[in-house]
Amino acid sequence: MRGIVPQKVKGFRDINSTQNALRELIIQKASEVYRRFGFSRFDTPVLEYAECLGKYLPDNDSVAQGVYSFKNPEQEPVFDTLGKEMRDDANNVIMENHYVAMRYDLTAPLARVYAESLWQQHLRGEIQGKTNLFRRFQYGPVYRFEAKLDPGRFREFWQMDFDTVGAEDVATDAENCMVLSEALENIGLKRGTYLIKINNRKIVNGLLAFIGIDKKEDETAVMRVIDKLDKIGIDNVAKELGAGRIDETSGAKIPGLGIKDDNIALIVNYIKDFEKHTSRKETLLKLKSKPAFENAVYKEGVEELEKIDGILKTLGYDEKVAILDPSMVRGLGYYTGPIYEVESLQTYKDEKGRERKVGSICGGGRYDGLVENLLGVKVPATGASIGVDRLAELLTLTNQVPEQIDGPVIVIVFDDALMPLYQKTAADLRKNGINTEIYYGAKRGLKHQMAYADKNNCPLAVIIGGDEAEKGVATVKNLKLGKLLADKISDKNEWKSKVQKEISLENLSEEIKNMLAQE
Amino acid sequence: MRGIVPQKVKGFRDINSTQNALRELIIQKASEVYRRFGFSRFDTPVLEYAECLGKYLPDNDSVAQGVYSFKNPEQEPVFDTLGKEMRDDANNVIMENHYVAMRYDLTAPLARVYAESLWQQHLRGEIQGKTNLFRRFQYGPVYRFEAKLDPGRFREFWQMDFDTVGAEDVATDAENCMVLSEALENIGLKRGTYLIKINNRKIVNGLLAFIGIDKKEDETAVMRVIDKLDKIGIDNVAKELGAGRIDETSGAKIPGLGIKDDNIALIVNYIKDFEKHTSRKETLLKLKSKPAFENAVYKEGVEELEKIDGILKTLGYDEKVAILDPSMVRGLGYYTGPIYEVESLQTYKDEKGRERKVGSICGGGRYDGLVENLLGVKVPATGASIGVDRLAELLTLTNQVPEQIDGPVIVIVFDDALMPLYQKTAADLRKNGINTEIYYGAKRGLKHQMAYADKNNCPLAVIIGGDEAEKGVATVKNLKLGKLLADKISDKNEWKSKVQKEISLENLSEEIKNMLAQE
Repeated sequence: MRGIVPQKVKGFRDINSTQNALRELIIQKASEVYRRFGFSRFDTPVLEYAECLGKYLPDNDSVAQGVYSFKNPEQEPVFDTLGKEMRDDANNVIMENHYVAMRYDLTAPLARVYAESLWQQHLRGEIQGKTNLFRRFQYGPVYRFEAKLDPGRFREFWQMDFDTVGAEDVATDAENCMVLSEALENIGLKRGTYLIKINNRKIVNGLLAFIGIDKKEDETAVMRVIDKLDKIGIDNVAKELGAGRIDETSGAKIPGLGIKDDNIALIVNYIKDFEKHTSRKETLLKLKSKPAFENAVYKEGVEELEKIDGILKTLGYDEKVAILDPSMVRGLGYYTGPIYEVESLQTYKDEKGRERKVGSICGGGRYDGLVENLLGVKVPATGASIGVDRLAELLTLTNQVPEQIDGPVIVIVFDDALMPLYQKTAADLRKNGINTEIYYGAKRGLKHQMAYADKNNCPLAVIIGGDEAEKGVATVKNLKLGKLLADKISDKNEWKSKVQKEISLENLSEEIKNMLAQE
Repeated sequence: MRGIVPQKVKGFRDINSTQNALRELIIQKASEVYRRFGFSRFDTPVLEYAECLGKYLPDNDSVAQGVYSFKNPEQEPVFDTLGKEMRDDANNVIMENHYVAMRYDLTAPLARVYAESLWQQHLRGEIQGKTNLFRRFQYGPVYRFEAKLDPGRFREFWQMDFDTVGAEDVATDAENCMVLSEALENIGLKRGTYLIKINNRKIVNGLLAFIGIDKKEDETAVMRVIDKLDKIGIDNVAKELGAGRIDETSGAKIPGLGIKDDNIALIVNYIKDFEKHTSRKETLLKLKSKPAFENAVYKEGVEELEKIDGILKTLGYDEKVAILDPSMVRGLGYYTGPIYEVESLQTYKDEKGRERKVGSICGGGRYDGLVENLLGVKVPATGASIGVDRLAELLTLTNQVPEQIDGPVIVIVFDDALMPLYQKTAADLRKNGINTEIYYGAKRGLKHQMAYADKNNCPLAVIIGGDEAEKGVATVKNLKLGKLLADKISDKNEWKSKVQKEISLENLSEEIKNMLAQE
């Protein structure tokens, strides 16, 4: 017999009630804001055809890497590039087990939704001019198989996205930044504790084209290297753009892109130029002063940023909320225009007392090519995402988690014969809006019952033994107050007199309601 | 080039905002009740080691069938039955790619959670007497690959479970029925429109033992056949218990269990005996009058039902809510004691005008052996589940869906030059608590914008053209009223005067708030 011990899959985790409460808070507060801006909720399955997801994973060119993917148990037709079922020599439809994959983000499935709807319109012979507008938000788990998992990271984590498909205007991109800001503040972050950094892929692509790098895959490779700036520093970025480097800790050889030295210098200088954050106005002036401004794509990128800056200014989102950061590029391959990332500025102390930051908590941008890659039709689209788990981590590490919600009132089980009385008592409390649990555990000792009540954050315990039942009363123990007074009152009888109270069963609901309200 | 067209995986579906609203309603209302009884939310991952999920799928003996399962990309140690890492001849730990599977329900992962915690206690050398109490609720998607998919069924669907692990007392089973009843009524079902049917596996197992069928796999096989009663009728059940039968529609040969004729007669008579629902008291009397009552397991099962009946009676849950149905067995292999199923009694007309019922919307029961199968430790456990999607379907088919929530107010985009004004106007409305969307679509015709507003259920449209901007006003169109009056008022000018209104931009938020409140 060979097998495994009972355990979660490595890199996965269970979520307890406190963590769930935090997730619910984030989702509810962000939903409010997303709806405020006109987005409505739309969900897609966890499983998609691998081919429909595209190949957009950060740092991976292949959907087979970094993704949980497997052969669908069902055989289905194979289609040619024109969307026609393929047939074999005997004219039978060719059937295959297509690969399916667990979604690695919520953007690729959205592109599938939109492409599927366009494809259906095409089959119905409906002629398309410009594309229809579609706005939705979605939240849920996404899956990434990273072979080397950093501590505190997981292979299943939650994201919360909002997107606008079918809108060309970069005003939507400005709006995306406002939505992020309002959502984070609605969740509880104070203005000034986070910063939205905005850039435009067109500027970086224009710059690269200006120095002769203009193939898509080369551009993407450069972006991925620059994206590591915060992690590896500018010197290592320069090395990875050139001949490559040896990783200090692992000793592994990291191959370089082989860009010429003078071009590397140009890229490095560009990044260094914008290292220090200045006002949006100054950054725009500096961007315009560069020689690359004669490149049409670069120029368009700067003008779009100028428009976004204008809208943000009009609506009162100043540099405390959002800056322009031309050195921020984001790793994902699919961005085509404005991009944004939200960095938390708050610090916390790790277990060794070192000051730490959580880093990026949201990201997004424009991806006008995502549907095109599936269907050949160009569809403008833009959106952003809150890293729900990352944000939950930030709130926890910086002590911004709302107070723990009380558990239920617990009815202690002393005597099986009294079970009907316990149940009537509990039913009565529930009818009065009081969450109430009867202790059904097999371990019946009072110590066990109290330990259970403590673990589940029960505010009060209702104790009815034989004597009490006869007298028609219950002893109510205020567990919360008891904990509070435990250090302050050393005399056990005094402590008891403060936290325990005999109450007639008739008035029990009323009195307990008052006790809970008093806190 | 071969591939697929943009589409969802077969058997999967997208969920639009209306369907999401219904799902949210069900989950919120049921959560309230689950919490009222002391359950708190706990989540597990979608992916589990296949071995940790066990083999409990209805109608399938193997976890490989009916489940989406694949090899984990990561290599991990192999353990022997004592939980020790296995080593090869050179003393290296044997590594393997274990199979992982997408969860097919929320009960098997709960057993993994509990077994994992017991296993960790065991590793820490903590001695266990009776097991700890653990109560949780959980909701989310589960995955089943059914090769033949019935119309309207899906391979990804939502369940909402609550469970109590570590409780022996069948009072918890009585409570489970109360939780189901209160949850369904909190969601909106009226008393009398659903019926909880309660039975006890011990009764059926006792009966089978009484006639000589006492091997676990034989018992399970009989349960699965009896579970089809509603679908195939008693005559076909008899055939499948015996020599098998030919399916009328497909012509497929369905093998039988080969039980002896007189034993089949006994089982069939037992089922027929309880076909007509009577009072719980009468059913209990009839159960006691059977010869099988001399079997200890059968007797224990009847006594447990008696206890459950007593508790339900004490708390006012009469036969309108719950009956005893000894012919209801449930297909799942893991039940060991009381079982329950909720049937919707409401009918609806299908597309051909035939009266239809949705059937079972909830189910549950006691499964004292689930953790034992993973770890060899017997742990009492019981719980139940609401079929969220099935219930949503019922509410939709019987017109019990709450009224559709209004979409956002829409700001029509006439002139790009006015975009800052549109955005200021929208920001102002949002600050006043009004959900507001600016139309960012690439298709700019007024007709397109209005069609979009209509599709998204927008109650009002704010129209500001050049003239209006100069005058400092907006034209507000009441789209909801407009639809209402469209049939009633044929004169276009009269209709316009009722549904369109010029409002100064200064008072816009206030007036729109009033208009929305008036509805």
